[in-house]
Amino acid sequence: MCTVLAIDAGGTTTRAVIVDRSGRCLGLGLASSGNPVSGGIDAAMASLASATQRARAAMGAGSQNGAEPDQFTSAVVAMAGAGLNAPLEQISRALAPLGLRGPVEIVPDVLATYCSGALAPDGYVLVAGTGAVAARIEDRRLAAVSDGLGWLLGDAGSGYWIGHRVASAVTAYLDGRAPQTALTDLLLAALQLPALQLPALAEHRDERPVVLLQLLGALYAMRPAELSRFAPLAFQARDDEVARSILVDAAAALVDTLSSVRDPAVDGPLVLGGSVSSGLLLALPGGPFARSIREGAPPITVPDGIAGAAVLGLERAGIPVDEDTFQQITNGITALRDAARLAGDSQ
Amino acid sequence: MCTVLAIDAGGTTTRAVIVDRSGRCLGLGLASSGNPVSGGIDAAMASLASATQRARAAMGAGSQNGAEPDQFTSAVVAMAGAGLNAPLEQISRALAPLGLRGPVEIVPDVLATYCSGALAPDGYVLVAGTGAVAARIEDRRLAAVSDGLGWLLGDAGSGYWIGHRVASAVTAYLDGRAPQTALTDLLLAALQLPALQLPALAEHRDERPVVLLQLLGALYAMRPAELSRFAPLAFQARDDEVARSILVDAAAALVDTLSSVRDPAVDGPLVLGGSVSSGLLLALPGGPFARSIREGAPPITVPDGIAGAAVLGLERAGIPVDEDTFQQITNGITALRDAARLAGDSQ
Repeated sequence: MCTVLAIDAGGTTTRAVIVDRSGRCLGLGLASSGNPVSGGIDAAMASLASATQRARAAMGAGSQNGAEPDQFTSAVVAMAGAGLNAPLEQISRALAPLGLRGPVEIVPDVLATYCSGALAPDGYVLVAGTGAVAARIEDRRLAAVSDGLGWLLGDAGSGYWIGHRVASAVTAYLDGRAPQTALTDLLLAALQLPALQLPALAEHRDERPVVLLQLLGALYAMRPAELSRFAPLAFQARDDEVARSILVDAAAALVDTLSSVRDPAVDGPLVLGGSVSSGLLLALPGGPFARSIREGAPPITVPDGIAGAAVLGLERAGIPVDEDTFQQITNGITALRDAARLAGDSQ
Repeated sequence: MCTVLAIDAGGTTTRAVIVDRSGRCLGLGLASSGNPVSGGIDAAMASLASATQRARAAMGAGSQNGAEPDQFTSAVVAMAGAGLNAPLEQISRALAPLGLRGPVEIVPDVLATYCSGALAPDGYVLVAGTGAVAARIEDRRLAAVSDGLGWLLGDAGSGYWIGHRVASAVTAYLDGRAPQTALTDLLLAALQLPALQLPALAEHRDERPVVLLQLLGALYAMRPAELSRFAPLAFQARDDEVARSILVDAAAALVDTLSSVRDPAVDGPLVLGGSVSSGLLLALPGGPFARSIREGAPPITVPDGIAGAAVLGLERAGIPVDEDTFQQITNGITALRDAARLAGDSQ
């Protein structure tokens, strides 16, 4: 029996699914970050192996499919930023003890995200979560990519980008260089620092408010990329002028990123991934982002790239994926996700 | 004999000088970063001890002063960001074996920089080097401070800020989202990457230019704060439109920082520290930065805070510093610097 292993090695979560040639999903497993860039190659390989192991175990436990293959005939791994130094050999070594007998292919994570939402050969994808990247897809391959350059140098409009601006706006306010903002109390609460009382602003050391020094201490103790956890505060405070202008700027940056991969000659669906893009559609429904996103067909929102990785896994194994197979895959993954969530809740 | 130890614990270099009550400089010693925030408390204390040890040794070697005190009656240490957790006890412990018998006082580094340039009780100081901070001085104490919040959240217009924008402008250009710039070849050369040839831009992996992937690899391998080493490239390419606009934005940010500590009721000299502020005066002689800086008296440019730390050391020991003593201190430090440089060159 021919089964394919598909992995979406994300920066936060790694997802593995085992599918047969009809698109039936036999097992789903999750683990922590599988991206070698964020946590190092060893941790990434451990996550890939752990998600795969859990997918196999889930398959045995579920057993409604009555099939437990010992081997996978091939594997597809969706991964960001793997262009230059694709860790193909390490992945093969990590997965061989778990039953991988055939070739591994690494595919760009944005392509997998696109394929999670659309079967059309040509189209567009915009992912704005912790990072931000857009791509044009032609013939189910990357034709153009924009941004996705990471927290320090790019990812304009991403969760990091928004969270960094939230932290900067609050520190600049406490430093007396920027207007008051509702983000201040939200950020202090998120860091479990005492809420700002105006007399406390008067407590100074070296002519700086003590609360500012405490906030700086807490923020510099974090890894910079973790500032993305403050992005939700901007959405929460979206009626505040400062917060709103951060969201408006983020939306404008994402419009730019998407525009730079648009080709008037290439028409097709737009797939949206990541919590920031869907959040901005809701928060700024009439703005340029929503208008730009809604040019042409309505966008297709997907949670991640695991369904697309499974589709690409079958396609790259020479098994055509039609609309029925595609539905089978996406419904199957949703059902396994729900089952896993229920099992988690009942424990 | 009453001698005072003064230390300027900078983020890159620590300087220690021993002065007597007349302002004579008996010895100067240098060591690496003495700032606990950048390299940790142990490394900082080792630098303070090492600079002090070298100042004592230089004093013995020079011997033109005929005095080698075994003990210092007090010490002043100029240090950034020491407001919240001033490491007073650690400094006392580190310096006691080197002859410190009296109290240690930590003073803000911006105050020491001001006192390196001016004896007037009231005035202003703007330091723009790796970081950027402005302060108003009243009665020779900090009365207001603006920015200096570090590379991640502030330091607007600093060397880091400029270097980060240089790197972002080049990566955005190579990513197809920003105009061509002369900074590209300068940055690639600074990182010892092959110069950009346009056919090479056509060499792609995952639809990204290989040179972009190499550049990202090199930049993310650095500590973020090290991006400040690319600030000189913007000055070097100041006729390039992109580079020039980075400098213009940096200058505008520094004008803002300085404005937010200005008080119309407080008049006094402006002391300028750091290579970025003097660089901007030269690069943009007719711009708003130069105009803002030249409001009132011409600015006084100083290399660092060591002379000011010595002045404060005497003042805090109850020894008044008049214009003659001040000249004695600044000339003495210059002479010791030159002697150290000559000795270094002749080795």
